Amino acid sequence: EMIYNLCKAIGGRVTKEIAECVYMALVTDTGSFHFSNTTERTLKVASELIKAGVKPADISEAVYNNYPWSRIELMRQVLGTVRRDDSGKVAYLRQTLNMRHAAGAVDGDNNGFVNIPLAARAILAAVYMREVGDGRFRVSLRSKGDINVAKVAERYGGGGHRNAAGLQIEGDWDAKEAELVDAVRDAVERAEAIAAGDITVAPDVL
Amino acid sequence: EMIYNLCKAIGGRVTKEIAECVYMALVTDTGSFHFSNTTERTLKVASELIKAGVKPADISEAVYNNYPWSRIELMRQVLGTVRRDDSGKVAYLRQTLNMRHAAGAVDGDNNGFVNIPLAARAILAAVYMREVGDGRFRVSLRSKGDINVAKVAERYGGGGHRNAAGLQIEGDWDAKEAELVDAVRDAVERAEAIAAGDITVAPDVL
Repeated sequence: EMIYNLCKAIGGRVTKEIAECVYMALVTDTGSFHFSNTTERTLKVASELIKAGVKPADISEAVYNNYPWSRIELMRQVLGTVRRDDSGKVAYLRQTLNMRHAAGAVDGDNNGFVNIPLAARAILAAVYMREVGDGRFRVSLRSKGDINVAKVAERYGGGGHRNAAGLQIEGDWDAKEAELVDAVRDAVERAEAIAAGDITVAPDVL
Repeated sequence: EMIYNLCKAIGGRVTKEIAECVYMALVTDTGSFHFSNTTERTLKVASELIKAGVKPADISEAVYNNYPWSRIELMRQVLGTVRRDDSGKVAYLRQTLNMRHAAGAVDGDNNGFVNIPLAARAILAAVYMREVGDGRFRVSLRSKGDINVAKVAERYGGGGHRNAAGLQIEGDWDAKEAELVDAVRDAVERAEAIAAGDITVAPDVL
């Protein structure tokens, strides 16, 4: 959007190539116009980009249907590990180094796997641990609504946004997974307590 | 879009409720603005609907993240069956009645499963067979670009659109699956031959 405004401001013609790049940026940044950063202006600009020659289906194909087959193999294996905690609100899933090797996976093949369990209405947050070495893991956290997983990530030296954060962790897999799931469930319960008016906090410590 | 135009034409105010329904229709009909039916006007109307009070993230949540957990369990099992044919261009996957029972699945839980393998660049079509009774199956076919799976479905008394069709079939699962995968691969090869200019046909028999 910023680039698009800039192009228009300097009076430059938006070529089809520029329009396609900007459209691709819009689609990826807004999660296909699903995220809360999708505004009236986002869609107005997207509409003008189509006028400038962009074919939405071609962009989608290039962004979302451009994976190697290894993504499907990896998804099958990672999805095989998905579980939910006792509360039924937090889902967790795993990716071992062996799964990567068996699938012949490349970087990016696992894009979005962490979001899959969030399709379930009752699941409010997800924890996705990837083995990167002996007892070392990369972790993605996701949440819905006011649940702040960035706060959880920060406690482990990670960071991110309220609904999407990441961190690195070392130790025993089962123990660390249980610890992270607990921490995320606390964040869920905290958000629920605030929503119910049971506790009152300043917005910045949410 | 038609409803929206009608509302504007009769001078009615588009209430937030109407705007939300129309936005939901736009999102589902265009596959989150990914399909080729996404036009300049689609996005312009969507933009105006946001102005009328629609929150895109809320609509997405209601449409795409509103499944029971059984969807995740069913996806795990169905994805466990995904394979591709020798050409590497056709993917196929299965859903048994047992999988439905084990997952406690309800109608709609399997929405979109057939599209998952199409995320792979090399996969040009997919065949998804669901057991509905003893030796009886419901089948979804999907394809990319000019590959016409509706023609395949019609041969079995089914129908649909070029890139999304369905049919019902009875018989031995393995045999019928192989038959359908072959038929779909023929459709792929036919589209490729036409694209390469090796054969010429009138558009209506594509």
